[in-house]
Amino acid sequence: MLSAESRLSFALLHHDGAARLGQIATRHGVIDTPVFMPVGTLASVKSLTTAQLSALSTQHSALAKPQIILNNTYHLMLRPGVELIEKLGGVHKFMSWDGAVLSDSGGFQVFSLATIRKIREEGVEFRSHIDGSAHFLSPERSIDIQQRLGVDIAMAFDECPAYGLSHEETERSMELTHRWARRSLAARNSNSALFGIVQGGVFHDLRKRSAEEICAMDWDGIAIGGVAVGESKQEMLDIMSFTAPLLPADKPRYLMGVGTPEDLLDGVAAGIDMFDCVMPTRNARNGSLFTSHGKIAIKNARFADDPRPLDPNCSCVTCTTVSRAYLRHLYVNDEIAAMVYNTIHNVSFYLDLMRGIRQAIASNSFGSFRDSFLSRISSGDAGAQ
Amino acid sequence: MLSAESRLSFALLHHDGAARLGQIATRHGVIDTPVFMPVGTLASVKSLTTAQLSALSTQHSALAKPQIILNNTYHLMLRPGVELIEKLGGVHKFMSWDGAVLSDSGGFQVFSLATIRKIREEGVEFRSHIDGSAHFLSPERSIDIQQRLGVDIAMAFDECPAYGLSHEETERSMELTHRWARRSLAARNSNSALFGIVQGGVFHDLRKRSAEEICAMDWDGIAIGGVAVGESKQEMLDIMSFTAPLLPADKPRYLMGVGTPEDLLDGVAAGIDMFDCVMPTRNARNGSLFTSHGKIAIKNARFADDPRPLDPNCSCVTCTTVSRAYLRHLYVNDEIAAMVYNTIHNVSFYLDLMRGIRQAIASNSFGSFRDSFLSRISSGDAGAQ
Repeated sequence: MLSAESRLSFALLHHDGAARLGQIATRHGVIDTPVFMPVGTLASVKSLTTAQLSALSTQHSALAKPQIILNNTYHLMLRPGVELIEKLGGVHKFMSWDGAVLSDSGGFQVFSLATIRKIREEGVEFRSHIDGSAHFLSPERSIDIQQRLGVDIAMAFDECPAYGLSHEETERSMELTHRWARRSLAARNSNSALFGIVQGGVFHDLRKRSAEEICAMDWDGIAIGGVAVGESKQEMLDIMSFTAPLLPADKPRYLMGVGTPEDLLDGVAAGIDMFDCVMPTRNARNGSLFTSHGKIAIKNARFADDPRPLDPNCSCVTCTTVSRAYLRHLYVNDEIAAMVYNTIHNVSFYLDLMRGIRQAIASNSFGSFRDSFLSRISSGDAGAQ
Repeated sequence: MLSAESRLSFALLHHDGAARLGQIATRHGVIDTPVFMPVGTLASVKSLTTAQLSALSTQHSALAKPQIILNNTYHLMLRPGVELIEKLGGVHKFMSWDGAVLSDSGGFQVFSLATIRKIREEGVEFRSHIDGSAHFLSPERSIDIQQRLGVDIAMAFDECPAYGLSHEETERSMELTHRWARRSLAARNSNSALFGIVQGGVFHDLRKRSAEEICAMDWDGIAIGGVAVGESKQEMLDIMSFTAPLLPADKPRYLMGVGTPEDLLDGVAAGIDMFDCVMPTRNARNGSLFTSHGKIAIKNARFADDPRPLDPNCSCVTCTTVSRAYLRHLYVNDEIAAMVYNTIHNVSFYLDLMRGIRQAIASNSFGSFRDSFLSRISSGDAGAQ
């Protein structure tokens, strides 16, 4: 499917309404879409060894194994630095991961984490949130770093405007993103695929202009950026639903930084193919666990003597080996293994959800799958199930 | 080998000098000795899921898998409490562990951790180091808890005297331990095996008296206690070497709370069959990693770009998948996965050492195995290897 010269290819296999079933062929395997990408900030999906990550949900099928993860350019450029990862053979070899890797451009973290930043036409000067050291990111520098990491899919360097900007401010930011997009494309010189990012805040006219300008360029895929930055859920859904249909049908569509299981279902319904979010891994560390009947706070005393699996409908290592009582015991006593068990489950839950979504689209039953999933998780008391 | 009624049986298979090759049959499998027991304080070998623990070192052989772990009565009686674990089917089911479990009696932790304690003939009143709550342990209470946990091997409740006591104080403590030993034996009413503990501090005459009195009772195995409590390494070796030959040849001999790889080799040379120590798991969390060429502090900057496996002679998941550079990256950035990778390796290293020891005894080459191991780890710069 993927020729030696091509960076990435996308095949749309089936439609069920706007929901799409597809395949993305990368240098590190074929990805079935819609897909969720676990976040591996520092070249590590937090709390898991790469061997554990590779073995997630294998009881179900090979399809449930994560096919692609996300790494953060901002974090890796600061620690351990791109030079080191390049010297050690790239990020796949560094973390011993044979699946695909998508990196973000660093833009989002520069605007959300860096303590001091100065935005110029050329790029962004900023200080590290860790040690205050001075750094610079530009389209050329970001693409260079991502290519040297050796990722399968790199992202254009964009300005991710804060939530709440005026139409005028958002437009100015969007236009900078467009100029940076052209420079990002021009900087591509490896076989890393490159995705463009549509911005435009909460304004339909700007989203439409951004979609037109970005989609006119030669990307391997298109992302909707500037969501999950503080806007309401309704605004996020509105931006997504408005923007998704403006994107070309024959390229992968990626909704950045989203979201809850409900959001993923909404995204798929709107025609999105790719998602990433820290929610499953971060919530795991906070003891907030997803189940097929809704979320559970595992520290709750009601689970102290609960012999049942966390989610009886899940076949991950956590749910097939230990009880809610044991998980609560580990969590309330600050055992490191609590983070491991919880992460195994939460990531497996997301992967299984995506597997279920793909099966439902294939059998033209995505609508009823979605209704049934939503009614189950909102039917009340997850802990009682 | 183990009849339905018997709690435990021990077969001595081979001698190589004083070093012994044996097998202990328990209700949860046959244990090849000499054996090292990883410590699972709170029914969790820290940083590992039970599935990971079960899969350690499987690349070598089934013999390298941990066959038995240790749980702490003191910790489990406080958190989550024996009632809960009993209700959930015992400690094996609680942590989903199908290998054998030995529990200590709680004595050592009462004397080392509890903030306030009052020792009477009847037992020990103490306050929890966690929340100050009042508790009581006696021979009857300790054996009852251990049996209700459902462990394969329980330990007699002893007084573990602090290091530095006079002969007279140590003798008084030893005599209390002997009276408690008889009460521990009398309290046995399940099919948990029960080991007696020889005390006597650093005094040969007391160790001899204790060995005589303890070994005259009907135990399934005998432990040397009161070591690893602050004495010098030379004193520990002296106590061990003096006491081990006083123990019956036809029962397992367990040196409690010891030790370094060198200590294990010394112990085996003195005829010890069983060991436990928090060192591999605790050191792992501190980034102190064992290798076949000595210890490595993984945070050291020299490893920042070191592409080699942590220990090229190790076939654990850590050494066969990631580099020293990656392990250092995870460790210096406080990634939870660092604890997991480090623990996988350190525990595998201990298990592999014991496997090597058993193979060496079987081929009458324990002496040269030991010399070669010691010369390798003391030959200088582990990080350079």
